[in-house]
Amino acid sequence: MTQNIYDDDQFFKGYSQLPRSIHGLAGAPEWASLRALIPDIKQQNILDLGCGFGWFCRWAAENGAEHVLGIDVSERMLARAREMTRDGRIAYIRADLESLTLQTGRYDLVYSSLVFHYLENLQLLMGEIYRSLLPGGAFVFSVEHPLTTAPIRPQWQVDGGRRVAWPVDSYQVEGPRSTNWLTDGVIKQHRTLETYVNLLIDTGFRLAHLQAWLPTEEQLREHPDWEDEKHRPTFLLVSARR
Amino acid sequence: MTQNIYDDDQFFKGYSQLPRSIHGLAGAPEWASLRALIPDIKQQNILDLGCGFGWFCRWAAENGAEHVLGIDVSERMLARAREMTRDGRIAYIRADLESLTLQTGRYDLVYSSLVFHYLENLQLLMGEIYRSLLPGGAFVFSVEHPLTTAPIRPQWQVDGGRRVAWPVDSYQVEGPRSTNWLTDGVIKQHRTLETYVNLLIDTGFRLAHLQAWLPTEEQLREHPDWEDEKHRPTFLLVSARR
Repeated sequence: MTQNIYDDDQFFKGYSQLPRSIHGLAGAPEWASLRALIPDIKQQNILDLGCGFGWFCRWAAENGAEHVLGIDVSERMLARAREMTRDGRIAYIRADLESLTLQTGRYDLVYSSLVFHYLENLQLLMGEIYRSLLPGGAFVFSVEHPLTTAPIRPQWQVDGGRRVAWPVDSYQVEGPRSTNWLTDGVIKQHRTLETYVNLLIDTGFRLAHLQAWLPTEEQLREHPDWEDEKHRPTFLLVSARR
Repeated sequence: MTQNIYDDDQFFKGYSQLPRSIHGLAGAPEWASLRALIPDIKQQNILDLGCGFGWFCRWAAENGAEHVLGIDVSERMLARAREMTRDGRIAYIRADLESLTLQTGRYDLVYSSLVFHYLENLQLLMGEIYRSLLPGGAFVFSVEHPLTTAPIRPQWQVDGGRRVAWPVDSYQVEGPRSTNWLTDGVIKQHRTLETYVNLLIDTGFRLAHLQAWLPTEEQLREHPDWEDEKHRPTFLLVSARR
């Protein structure tokens, strides 16, 4: 099992204070773009891998999904997810995503938001996801963009107080990166964009769409510092079909 | 029609002196990787877009292809290609790749090496390529990698005489980049990796493999400076199927 940073006291406290934790999907700037990749979910069976506080599970149920299963490795996040959920169509299970066995041909949609870059081994999970989908089923996920995860020593190049470039090193050297985000020594796994794509193809998926997230003009007016996203995307959004 | 830099005196002279111009495919460090993406070409009909001096066309004919058509916009390159070619299975045509009309269902393989990043409009050409392929036919191409083409002001970050990072700016801002390569003001078109992939998918192709080129250990022993490729790939290799 890889690092379960979400049950770390300091990380959990910091994470709980992020806009996406307090406001749910509406607090995640990339949500509108990710949502656009999700097919109609009415009457559908849905699996959310790394469901956290369950915001997506509740959204799916509210929007007509038949059954929603949320899986996460963090006890604390699931406890809060259960507290916030009053809907018999939603179930939560604690499990390690790297050693998961899923039902065959069960889901119309497998969804995962900003989780896979914590996992050392994605190949097995991809196979499980493929197997768990109905033929034609959708697989929609986001990860930290490979340009963001690549550098061993991530640091913006600044000129006159403005961020002007994101120095990329070691893009082709995949593996762990230690970052200080919410707490020290959070381990994320860097993979190239090429590797994400080949993993999907080699598993049998048909790739449908890739997107490096960009803020809308409206978001930029509210958050002028998100201009940096034009230099280097933070989020990669992916849509594939079984 | 986009810039035809290959007929510029200074550029042509410089280009003619590159290892890949003198030694052909063997002088192109990424050739072995690109070749590995090409299916068996015996008895096949092949189209090479941006054929230059015709090295690939001759290689294909020597390896059993039935017919090979090389298309290029540069008079000078085609003149030299014809001088070097004594094989009735190979034909060369001068045409602008951005306003090309191809025969329907004609080719088993469409190949293109380091050409598309010169074209402003790829969408129409992608459609033509798709239409020109037989069902199941292969489309294999290379371009300058989007990490290489992104920066408006490309310049390695150097520390103690060593290249330590490639500062990326404007990755999400697609369009022309003016570089000084062989001559001043060579215009290349930056596209994100996401855009290349979506262009293929939206045209109807099934993506088969992506590869950010890396030198082999043997190549690194001969060219220690190619270590830089680990920080930032120069070439993107793509394989897709109709």
